[in-house]
Amino acid sequence: MIAFSLLATDGSARRGTLQLTHGSVQTPAFMPVGTAASVKGLTPADVRSAGTQILLANTYHLWLRPGLETIEAAGGLHRFMAWDAPILTDSGGFQVFSLQERRTLDPDGVTFKSHLDGSMHRFTPENTVAFQEAIGSDIAMQLDVCVKLPATYEELAASVSMTTAWAQRCRAAQRSPDTALFAIVQGGLDESLRMRSVRELVALDFPGYAIGGLSVGETREEMERTARLTAAALPQSKPRYIMGIGTVRDIIAAVDCGIDMFDCVYPTRCGRNARAMTHSGEFNIRNAAYVRDFSPVDPQCSCTVCTTYTRAYLCHLFRAGEMLGSQLLSYHNVALLHDVMAQARAAIEGGNWATWRDAALAAISS
Amino acid sequence: MIAFSLLATDGSARRGTLQLTHGSVQTPAFMPVGTAASVKGLTPADVRSAGTQILLANTYHLWLRPGLETIEAAGGLHRFMAWDAPILTDSGGFQVFSLQERRTLDPDGVTFKSHLDGSMHRFTPENTVAFQEAIGSDIAMQLDVCVKLPATYEELAASVSMTTAWAQRCRAAQRSPDTALFAIVQGGLDESLRMRSVRELVALDFPGYAIGGLSVGETREEMERTARLTAAALPQSKPRYIMGIGTVRDIIAAVDCGIDMFDCVYPTRCGRNARAMTHSGEFNIRNAAYVRDFSPVDPQCSCTVCTTYTRAYLCHLFRAGEMLGSQLLSYHNVALLHDVMAQARAAIEGGNWATWRDAALAAISS
Repeated sequence: MIAFSLLATDGSARRGTLQLTHGSVQTPAFMPVGTAASVKGLTPADVRSAGTQILLANTYHLWLRPGLETIEAAGGLHRFMAWDAPILTDSGGFQVFSLQERRTLDPDGVTFKSHLDGSMHRFTPENTVAFQEAIGSDIAMQLDVCVKLPATYEELAASVSMTTAWAQRCRAAQRSPDTALFAIVQGGLDESLRMRSVRELVALDFPGYAIGGLSVGETREEMERTARLTAAALPQSKPRYIMGIGTVRDIIAAVDCGIDMFDCVYPTRCGRNARAMTHSGEFNIRNAAYVRDFSPVDPQCSCTVCTTYTRAYLCHLFRAGEMLGSQLLSYHNVALLHDVMAQARAAIEGGNWATWRDAALAAISS
Repeated sequence: MIAFSLLATDGSARRGTLQLTHGSVQTPAFMPVGTAASVKGLTPADVRSAGTQILLANTYHLWLRPGLETIEAAGGLHRFMAWDAPILTDSGGFQVFSLQERRTLDPDGVTFKSHLDGSMHRFTPENTVAFQEAIGSDIAMQLDVCVKLPATYEELAASVSMTTAWAQRCRAAQRSPDTALFAIVQGGLDESLRMRSVRELVALDFPGYAIGGLSVGETREEMERTARLTAAALPQSKPRYIMGIGTVRDIIAAVDCGIDMFDCVYPTRCGRNARAMTHSGEFNIRNAAYVRDFSPVDPQCSCTVCTTYTRAYLCHLFRAGEMLGSQLLSYHNVALLHDVMAQARAAIEGGNWATWRDAALAAISS
């Protein structure tokens, strides 16, 4: 059901292959987000041709709409959305905890009000695993307890304890050999709590580990320090996934910390907002500077958008309110991140990670 | 620059080939509308793979944004929007006359206020031809004078006279052998005025004729009667184009009148509004009936949307507010109209037009 091979390392950076039910993934890998069974603005064929090996979908959203019955009747999430490569599903923990006063936590699970129609729902470790297995996820995430930062030590400690307890229950609830279950390390920015969370979860022997509870209000330096020490404490032989990371800079930093997988809505959200991501930084393609700029979005990118269209055409599409602008720029931004990952993989394999990393970071800062 | 061959006729219905600068078009042909150099929601590659042979763009919109300088600097409209097949451009007459109190007509041309920023602009027969030639249209339309129905005989007669005068000036203003110029027959629902308009324009010997001033408030019966008598009066050897027609029923009726070309925003506008067009009628794919309907949008359609996705998935996309729903349904609707046209062409070639027409019309009415 899952096998991870570490092919090369360079410093802390890792180059691996992850074998999953619906195919293999070369790591480090970026996972575009298809929240509600659609990567916004892109067909599954687009998502694939942009270089995507695995995408992410959200249990919270799919649970509410279209719901389990529909996805099961469709023959699973892959068939429902016409995507035949691997899918990782988030457990819904992060979304539910973002609901704030619309949810109540108890030791057995969490009860929440749908943001769509106010209907009441309940997530438990068991039913979120069952849901993810039923829809056919390649990788399911445990239900975890997220805490918004800043938080007290007691709040963070409680979230670590409950996350461990729920991890154990998720493990026990597993029924399908086709879905791999990843645990989620919590502990906020507290080093001792992160180490405790790692110890407790590693003792339960999961096939992969995520670093949760980051990108929730802390500084970049705090995030990177915590990601680095957490990654270093995780087993070498298991894939590591940091949740909610999606800028070129943050992904390069995460790879440098020894992390293998990343997801974020960032490239598609930017794409819908005229924000172009490139190997030499970001810019708003609506700006007057691009009205008659007939160069590609990123001259260093070989994606179909960069080889077919100009900045001037995309600038026009955004100014004219044409949805094709969002479609094309979302495609490019996803392809760009995959290209960054491909370069990172080559650099680690070639033993020149630090050189590549420094050049790539310098290029986006200049 | 343009050649039209009539390959077969069956009753009044015609099967032809139109040779243009950027390629040939099998007629009867439907032209999707790319108002502002984009067929909404579709990449040029999508537009092509859906079966499009020629698309329409609007002088009024392109004139205002991105403007002539940008399109010329891009190397023409084809290169600007990455579309290498034929393009027909409307002269802007229809859009300008829709502006009502924002425009002033005089014998030399029409002065109007941009709907975007209130800036003043002026169209003349000469400058609209120059614009369309400069951007590289395969077919340019003359600047004409449209009248909203109902209208008095005097208003209609004046519009016919001025349209003829402007047609003559457009003809004299032509400079490029790569752009074919079509005249536009006016005259509202008045038979004698339509005949006068045809006589005057045919005397000027254009390579093609459009029937304008319909789809502007009259009944379907009035439209069809006027289209039929106008088409019958036009020369057999020249292509005939009726403007603003885009439902399956209206297109079949127009082919039956002996018309060869049609354009409308209808299939893409429907696509954005969850309205599915099929060989057996239209339906709203958001409806509860489709939540777990795992059949294709149209089981008789072989487009990539129908062979890849289900009604249930599209229903979900629209309910979840995912833009992919608009993209996929726009694609299907365009492909569906092209499929209707392909069937119509085959029926005319095969000499069974009336049988096919009656069956096709019965299928969408049942």
